[in-house]
Amino acid sequence: MMTIKDIAGLAGVTPMTVSNVLRNRGRVGELTRQRVMEVVEAHGYRPNLTARALVERRAPTLALMLGCITNPFYPEFTLQANNAARRHGRFLLVCNTDYEPDSGTRFMADVAGSLSDGILVANTGELRVEELKAIQASGTPVVVSVWEFPDEPPEGIPCVAFDSRKAGRIATEHLLELGHTRIGALVASAKKGIHGGRYQGYCDAMRAAKVKHVLADAHFGEDSYQGGYDAAIALLTTRPDLTALFVSNDLPALGVLNAAASLGRSVPGDLSVVSITNIELTGQSRPALTTVSIPTAEMAEASVDLLIRLIGQPGAHVPMVMTSDPVLIRRASTAPLQASPAPSRSR
Amino acid sequence: MMTIKDIAGLAGVTPMTVSNVLRNRGRVGELTRQRVMEVVEAHGYRPNLTARALVERRAPTLALMLGCITNPFYPEFTLQANNAARRHGRFLLVCNTDYEPDSGTRFMADVAGSLSDGILVANTGELRVEELKAIQASGTPVVVSVWEFPDEPPEGIPCVAFDSRKAGRIATEHLLELGHTRIGALVASAKKGIHGGRYQGYCDAMRAAKVKHVLADAHFGEDSYQGGYDAAIALLTTRPDLTALFVSNDLPALGVLNAAASLGRSVPGDLSVVSITNIELTGQSRPALTTVSIPTAEMAEASVDLLIRLIGQPGAHVPMVMTSDPVLIRRASTAPLQASPAPSRSR
Repeated sequence: MMTIKDIAGLAGVTPMTVSNVLRNRGRVGELTRQRVMEVVEAHGYRPNLTARALVERRAPTLALMLGCITNPFYPEFTLQANNAARRHGRFLLVCNTDYEPDSGTRFMADVAGSLSDGILVANTGELRVEELKAIQASGTPVVVSVWEFPDEPPEGIPCVAFDSRKAGRIATEHLLELGHTRIGALVASAKKGIHGGRYQGYCDAMRAAKVKHVLADAHFGEDSYQGGYDAAIALLTTRPDLTALFVSNDLPALGVLNAAASLGRSVPGDLSVVSITNIELTGQSRPALTTVSIPTAEMAEASVDLLIRLIGQPGAHVPMVMTSDPVLIRRASTAPLQASPAPSRSR
Repeated sequence: MMTIKDIAGLAGVTPMTVSNVLRNRGRVGELTRQRVMEVVEAHGYRPNLTARALVERRAPTLALMLGCITNPFYPEFTLQANNAARRHGRFLLVCNTDYEPDSGTRFMADVAGSLSDGILVANTGELRVEELKAIQASGTPVVVSVWEFPDEPPEGIPCVAFDSRKAGRIATEHLLELGHTRIGALVASAKKGIHGGRYQGYCDAMRAAKVKHVLADAHFGEDSYQGGYDAAIALLTTRPDLTALFVSNDLPALGVLNAAASLGRSVPGDLSVVSITNIELTGQSRPALTTVSIPTAEMAEASVDLLIRLIGQPGAHVPMVMTSDPVLIRRASTAPLQASPAPSRSR
């Protein structure tokens, strides 16, 4: 197979010039460009991306660190990040950490600066900021995305954030406007964990509406379908008087819908359920889930764009990128509070 | 940053020897090994994967071509393929073709032999065999996975297959054993398309049970949630006498469950529904979906193992790899035929 060096030798230029011609960049005279292209075409040369990356002193991919690709949020985020990377002529290397920070560490040590010249970290609440800073200091830009706490950006690491607290407030205000006051909160993390901002938004809305809420109305647990199912069974068994539930994430909220059916509670007749994110599945559940949409596609694109910019301008100072406000998506899982509770139906 | 050449120079060996030592392979004398490791440790050297790949004349990743990462089958397949690749010390480059064969072609042209030294194609029914053979002939092994037609393997391309026809038969036999005879088929492809084997299995079982079935009982359409929803509405409206549905894939079957509810048909009381694949979501629907499990994890692992073997032994003759038989997973969407149809309930 021809290498870029062979082409350069035949055209009487440096490999860097060949690379510049093939990528339409740098200053190359028109005659030189033509000579290079004649050699390239005469030999049917296709650039070796690995070699090209070495010649250009850069690695050929962007790495995306994520929790687990089977959690349906991540494929949606990955698809958008992938499309954005392709628009920049880059490939995305998907690194599945299984929510293990050690696994993320190993991945990054393996790819940073060699296979990948930029690292995009989808925040899972397990950030090791010092580690990311060390990678950044070694010359490989790092961007943290899906950051939930715009008031407290990770120090020294560029991030792309959304207003999770506002999302929690919008979801809860929707329930309050429907007349609900006995609103439980199912939070899919610890109180100060990754969904802490969303829970604060719930508290903000309850406080603003002067509705008393006590910690007994809240449950803190796991961010999974089964976690939501179990939490709803537990909370609704001890607090059957709740008429609505704020759930901090869609996947557990889908479990909540199923738990309500198991308990003979009709949604939305006996119980309203609202959540946050707007993954595709929320339009497919029965009833379809009312949720607050966060700007997943926008965050993925903005993160890749930012990473590409940092690769081109190492050391550039980048303030946090803030994305669009969350938006309520009204579907069929929420309804006005009924004057007297509907009779509970078993199925 | 130290390069492998610097290490080689300091240790007085070739870069290939350094590479062999770091990868624990090749024949290297114990004294040489010790000398290399002393230099490596003294300089805190971490191998540059891109450079290493060039030294070893191989590309650093395996490419996985798939239809769309947001179709929930693919994340499950990708997770297993990724874990298998990691066990071989490799990274998986996920190439999302959006079900566009042209997009697959462009991806493969970009990565084959440069960024990736092996290509794994998750079959989506849009294979361009001649193209795959050309890539193979240029020295980059190709493996087709999730192959549905073990009787007709793609000529000249190694593949990892499962018995889709048997899966269709098992699903339909389950309905027959429950006493159903008016069994419709919702096929999420054209009749001779990717789910053609699954449909043949349905026909086999109907024929063996001497149950008459006519083409009017079948609907051929799209492999999506909405495709299943629309097809079920259409078929059950024209054929309300059907008491059971065979659906060729889980994602459309989840749409079928929702369509049944929209039509006031209770599942499984008025209508039994069975499908094929066993994606995680089938355990989370209400009712949980009875399905025939195909060996997704086994196929992903076998495919990566085969690809690695072909990379090590270019030109090795590999017969088709056949994976375990499909298995019925009984859940809540199927029930014995009722003596007289249950009254239809609207919700």
